[in-house]
Amino acid sequence: MSVDPRATSDPLTDDELRTLHAHWRAANYLAVGQIYLMANPLLTEPLRPEHVKPRLLGHWGTSPGLNLVYTHLNRVIRARELNALCIWGPGHGGPAVVANSWLEGSYTEIYPDVTQDAAGMARLFRQFSFPGGVPSHVAPETPGSVHEGGELGYSLSHAYGAAFDNPDLLVACVIGDGEAETGPLAASWHSNKFLDPVHDGAVLPILHLNGYKIANPAVLARIPEPELDELLRGYGHDPIHVTGDEPNAVHRAMAQAMDNALDRIAALQRAARADGAGERPRWPVIVLRTPKGWTGPAQVDGLPVEGTWRSHQVPLSAVRDHPEHLRQLEAWLRSYRPEELFDGQGRPRLDVLAPIPEGARRLGATPHANGGRLLRELPLRDLDAYAVPVDKPGVTLHEPTRVLGELLADVMRATADRRDFRLVGPDETASNRLQAVYEASGKAWQAQTLQVDEHLDRHGRVMEILSEHTCQGWLEGYLLTGRHGLFSCYEAFVHIVDSMVNQHVKWLKTSRALSWRSPVASLNYLLTSHVWRQDHNGFSHQDPGFVDHILNKSPAAVRVYLPPDANTLLSVADHVLRSRDYVNVIVAGKQPCFDWLTMDQARVHCARGAGVWEWAGTENGAREPDVVLACAGDVPTQEVLAAAQLLRRNLPELAVRVVNVVDIARLMPREEHPHGMSDFEYDGLFTTDRPVVFAYHGYPWLIHRLAYRRVGHRNLHVRGYKEIGTTTTPFDMVVRNDLDRYRLVMDVIDRVPGLAVRAAAVRQRMEDVRLRHHDWIRAHGTDLPEVADWAWDG
Amino acid sequence: MSVDPRATSDPLTDDELRTLHAHWRAANYLAVGQIYLMANPLLTEPLRPEHVKPRLLGHWGTSPGLNLVYTHLNRVIRARELNALCIWGPGHGGPAVVANSWLEGSYTEIYPDVTQDAAGMARLFRQFSFPGGVPSHVAPETPGSVHEGGELGYSLSHAYGAAFDNPDLLVACVIGDGEAETGPLAASWHSNKFLDPVHDGAVLPILHLNGYKIANPAVLARIPEPELDELLRGYGHDPIHVTGDEPNAVHRAMAQAMDNALDRIAALQRAARADGAGERPRWPVIVLRTPKGWTGPAQVDGLPVEGTWRSHQVPLSAVRDHPEHLRQLEAWLRSYRPEELFDGQGRPRLDVLAPIPEGARRLGATPHANGGRLLRELPLRDLDAYAVPVDKPGVTLHEPTRVLGELLADVMRATADRRDFRLVGPDETASNRLQAVYEASGKAWQAQTLQVDEHLDRHGRVMEILSEHTCQGWLEGYLLTGRHGLFSCYEAFVHIVDSMVNQHVKWLKTSRALSWRSPVASLNYLLTSHVWRQDHNGFSHQDPGFVDHILNKSPAAVRVYLPPDANTLLSVADHVLRSRDYVNVIVAGKQPCFDWLTMDQARVHCARGAGVWEWAGTENGAREPDVVLACAGDVPTQEVLAAAQLLRRNLPELAVRVVNVVDIARLMPREEHPHGMSDFEYDGLFTTDRPVVFAYHGYPWLIHRLAYRRVGHRNLHVRGYKEIGTTTTPFDMVVRNDLDRYRLVMDVIDRVPGLAVRAAAVRQRMEDVRLRHHDWIRAHGTDLPEVADWAWDG
Repeated sequence: MSVDPRATSDPLTDDELRTLHAHWRAANYLAVGQIYLMANPLLTEPLRPEHVKPRLLGHWGTSPGLNLVYTHLNRVIRARELNALCIWGPGHGGPAVVANSWLEGSYTEIYPDVTQDAAGMARLFRQFSFPGGVPSHVAPETPGSVHEGGELGYSLSHAYGAAFDNPDLLVACVIGDGEAETGPLAASWHSNKFLDPVHDGAVLPILHLNGYKIANPAVLARIPEPELDELLRGYGHDPIHVTGDEPNAVHRAMAQAMDNALDRIAALQRAARADGAGERPRWPVIVLRTPKGWTGPAQVDGLPVEGTWRSHQVPLSAVRDHPEHLRQLEAWLRSYRPEELFDGQGRPRLDVLAPIPEGARRLGATPHANGGRLLRELPLRDLDAYAVPVDKPGVTLHEPTRVLGELLADVMRATADRRDFRLVGPDETASNRLQAVYEASGKAWQAQTLQVDEHLDRHGRVMEILSEHTCQGWLEGYLLTGRHGLFSCYEAFVHIVDSMVNQHVKWLKTSRALSWRSPVASLNYLLTSHVWRQDHNGFSHQDPGFVDHILNKSPAAVRVYLPPDANTLLSVADHVLRSRDYVNVIVAGKQPCFDWLTMDQARVHCARGAGVWEWAGTENGAREPDVVLACAGDVPTQEVLAAAQLLRRNLPELAVRVVNVVDIARLMPREEHPHGMSDFEYDGLFTTDRPVVFAYHGYPWLIHRLAYRRVGHRNLHVRGYKEIGTTTTPFDMVVRNDLDRYRLVMDVIDRVPGLAVRAAAVRQRMEDVRLRHHDWIRAHGTDLPEVADWAWDG
Repeated sequence: MSVDPRATSDPLTDDELRTLHAHWRAANYLAVGQIYLMANPLLTEPLRPEHVKPRLLGHWGTSPGLNLVYTHLNRVIRARELNALCIWGPGHGGPAVVANSWLEGSYTEIYPDVTQDAAGMARLFRQFSFPGGVPSHVAPETPGSVHEGGELGYSLSHAYGAAFDNPDLLVACVIGDGEAETGPLAASWHSNKFLDPVHDGAVLPILHLNGYKIANPAVLARIPEPELDELLRGYGHDPIHVTGDEPNAVHRAMAQAMDNALDRIAALQRAARADGAGERPRWPVIVLRTPKGWTGPAQVDGLPVEGTWRSHQVPLSAVRDHPEHLRQLEAWLRSYRPEELFDGQGRPRLDVLAPIPEGARRLGATPHANGGRLLRELPLRDLDAYAVPVDKPGVTLHEPTRVLGELLADVMRATADRRDFRLVGPDETASNRLQAVYEASGKAWQAQTLQVDEHLDRHGRVMEILSEHTCQGWLEGYLLTGRHGLFSCYEAFVHIVDSMVNQHVKWLKTSRALSWRSPVASLNYLLTSHVWRQDHNGFSHQDPGFVDHILNKSPAAVRVYLPPDANTLLSVADHVLRSRDYVNVIVAGKQPCFDWLTMDQARVHCARGAGVWEWAGTENGAREPDVVLACAGDVPTQEVLAAAQLLRRNLPELAVRVVNVVDIARLMPREEHPHGMSDFEYDGLFTTDRPVVFAYHGYPWLIHRLAYRRVGHRNLHVRGYKEIGTTTTPFDMVVRNDLDRYRLVMDVIDRVPGLAVRAAAVRQRMEDVRLRHHDWIRAHGTDLPEVADWAWDG
């Protein structure tokens, strides 16, 4: 439907209209002030060049629209006593959100030196985009925010993440027309097929068409309105239009559109909650068309600016040097009539304050935007309940992720009433062998269900959509509003969210430095279906580089674990689910894998993060080993153990130490990562002068990059994935990448001084098996029997 | 519109129907055979366990649908003499595409040992998903393919990329309902706002709704058909539906839908080409609903399989061990009546061959899928035409990307008729200062245009959409079909396509090993608006890690360049535009940057990739330097030069060598990368025993990871971006990350033996400037005058 601004059913009295307009003007004034001014905030004297910042950095274009939305959200929150959160997709409109927070008082509560008076306003203006000040975008520093809008694409999935399991929350979400062109945003419209009207809150998307991106028109602003309506209805929404550039008319239309949308949301929720399951609701969406840079300079230097891309950043760019620009800036600022908005001390007048709600209902003060304040410990049982029995290492096999599934199922069960845990994944939960969770919670699904379907559930908390972006966005929104979760993903395709996780780590890093932000649950990845076991998908599905990507990020906020078996996976999972403010990456297999450690051993080993497996080596007491065989990852661990066994049988006099690394950051210097080992520890484990043959799950150079400062680095020889992939058997994959047991034995022989001659025959036997492997596999398509049937005999 | 299968306007004669059905059955038979059989291909004897592969790896679910599309594309290509290419989005249906290629003969032409007879069929079956054989997905090995379907999301943008500037080409594109949930796919529907009906070919999307992804229903298959129609119309398409599970009825409906779609496409193109500019066409889309695993086993072990997610991979999984499964497999294979499809020698019979077009019109033989065969050299002028004059280094300033813009504009001009060069970017062409290209070509745009817009052009070849995914997909499709291009992108946000570039590099790596694939133009990235110059956007826009990501990929196919000024950027750009089969990454600034090298010097320096800048150092002839100051990247180069100047003034007796690195892979060992230096070269440049202070553009540990094998590595000290970012001045950014000139001088003093005491006062002065910087910037918001006004005085 379209709202006619001249409709008779005007929801606003003249008084309300006046105060809404005053609030909006005040916010606009404060936004312009932040971008331009470093003194004379109330324009008590004529504007002079020295009042203006030397470097003008900020984005005006979207700010008046965001101010309009904030103002009108204030009205309905107050009138309806709503609990609301807003996701500001066009986050580069930072000055708008900060301005509103200052007006409502939440800014001063968090930053007491930015007082609600002239001095505070001066600080507010000066700090913006100023060295040592606040960023120009909505950011962790911004009260009420859980979404940095710089990269664009994730506002709507964040909004849904915030709404899940928050039945009384309204999540408004402003989507810019630029952001609407991105893939992640386009995919996330379909989130409404996963929103449970009973247990989840409502998401109200506000598509803000201001017509332009940085320098180009926006696609959705330039298709005919009926076509846009079809698109939005095709997304499952019912559009409500607000279009205009005359402020009073737009205020009226916006108030009516908000009332209309919220009435419908309330009715849909009432119906679903009264009747239980019903039809999937068709939720409203507001389409707001206002000029880019609205109320800013109409023309600058003879070119149109208001309503065009030229107002994207700073409409007047040469204010200090150009008297006409200075004059235009002053006129622009005075057009808001600041003397009507602020008293002589710079305090907002009553008209300006009138629309603002009270206390925690203010958008800048909602606890949902500081989720750590709402966070509860996850109920986790003792790991013995899930542990696999291990009488002897390397005899029995389990699928580690299947074992983990039992733990996750219990977490689902224990949170059935609290509803503060969700599992997300791109249609891979069962493929990743976590299907035990389905016994505790079905898969969220509001679209059509057929008889043949399994585990679909209108109230489920397992979330599966074939969009890694949407999974990640949902989970980020869920975590930042104070809940828990885990993302299970094919290892290769988690790169799809490389850029998203960048932003989340940045968010966490910055939040950690803000004392008012309470710690939130960590973002936990389970990367499985990994590089070594893509038997049927091949090269396109093989990439272990996410670990490299993550380890480039702030060490304070990232952790990477490679548990080698089921019990160590349990231990790591328990740890990460209890942790706060990290991005944790777990790489673990779903295929049958030897059990190496008992639950107790696993706990100790994972707590240490790296350690000697005495039972696997041949050190025989106190002397230094001749060689260290190190491993990280399930497949490398198996190959190293098999190599250790071959060495024990073939070269029994060789003193071999086996070291397993679970927590990969342990290899880094202590100064570089909080988990890093001291040199004393490292040298004790790896020696300073013996050869170290290291079998690593991913790209081998990562290990060098972590350990290059160690004394023993010159003796370090790493094997790993060398980007040689195809559809083949598991063992053929390790042979192709020189990570196989026979190659590792040859590496040892090549590197232990004096061994090359003495062990030449052994080396030749290893070489022979590899050749035999090549022939066998081409003939049979399976692995050599001695490999397929291998087990540890220690 | 909806096509009624019983419509009277039946486009098929009974003969045609019979041959189409025979072709489809043959393709289905061959797909099943590939997944299951390693012997007895024609079922000339009863099926026994040993005829079946020991490891069953493949995806049946989507194959019958792909076979249907291939069969019907054959019909219309033949009937209308079309030049066509098909993008097979559900690429895991590899056996279907391979089966069709074998039937049409294109497979045997490329792989002569896979003959079109029983022996060849046996090879065809055995090689599939078999070690040393062919991948299970559509891949570079597959004739007619330019799209690996493993990751999903990019089929439609690839299709548009292929269609751009190919006015006579029809690009069909099968989109699976799983892929349709991904963000990149969702965004790419809007590509039709960028398709010029005059100069571009047509894209015919075929949305294949088979109802399920891996284990879940697909969203678009489970919304009401009217809602789906609204979505597709909202995307700008006109849907044509084909729904059914009775083969003859579906053949009829599909033939009619194809004719309908192609008639409309022909009419739209005729109108646009006759009238010139007109309304944006509403292109047809076919929605094909057929059961997943259609014609496969209806039930297995008592559970429904055909039409459900259970047929996604191998419907019968225990054929060797389970007699009932074996029986079902035999019945399934025989249901296609192979004896009617192949003669006694295994050759396809005439009925099967009847629908297949001739020669290069066959989908497996089109040159557009082997784009190197169509590739022409780009017309590039001598670089002197664009070079900036450099009388003395470090005096004049230019914006490097703006200078490059002139070169790109000339390429646009020189290809105005050929139309085989495009520039893509997410709304950042002007922001990245490449706007000179607009003088040569406008921005492609078919949506509404307003008076105030600039440079929009229905026939433009500058492509701007706020979707890095779509930009990348367009460019990949354009390059793989034999054209040229460049992608300009903000450095931080190119991570959005990390996963896409993975797949492209894999494609190139695999293609290089296939002698029948001709080299294609490289995929060239210009990464600008980089980490050091995000003055107004701050932390969210700061990430130099794409270089790390790229350098994990196959060394044969990746190149990274960091030109330090305008002339070196020209030289590098000229080189990459002439190169083939690489992914080239150029990192270069858009802000004013000192000119260091003349054009001739730049050519020599870039050809070497790394070298001593004698004029900048103080070696004074033959003796070894006391210290090497190395740099890579424009901002680090400036800081190193400023540090060299400070050292020359303050410690004139110190012999300083300045080394600049443009081609970062030069640092790697020659064995690891084709561009790697020999140890002899490296040691000559960096010495084996002198301290090397290396200022690098990105994460410092990358340099260690590249150089760890060098003898001099222990003396290597690297400064770079340490993930400390915010909205601040350019110089404050380098200070915060310890990359500034004063810090570099301190590093030198700390590392040159004996200098710490002698130069204590100098060191203190450096420290003092840094402290002064901190105070100044907080007070003024600008950089210290001595930094802002700095220039080289050598």
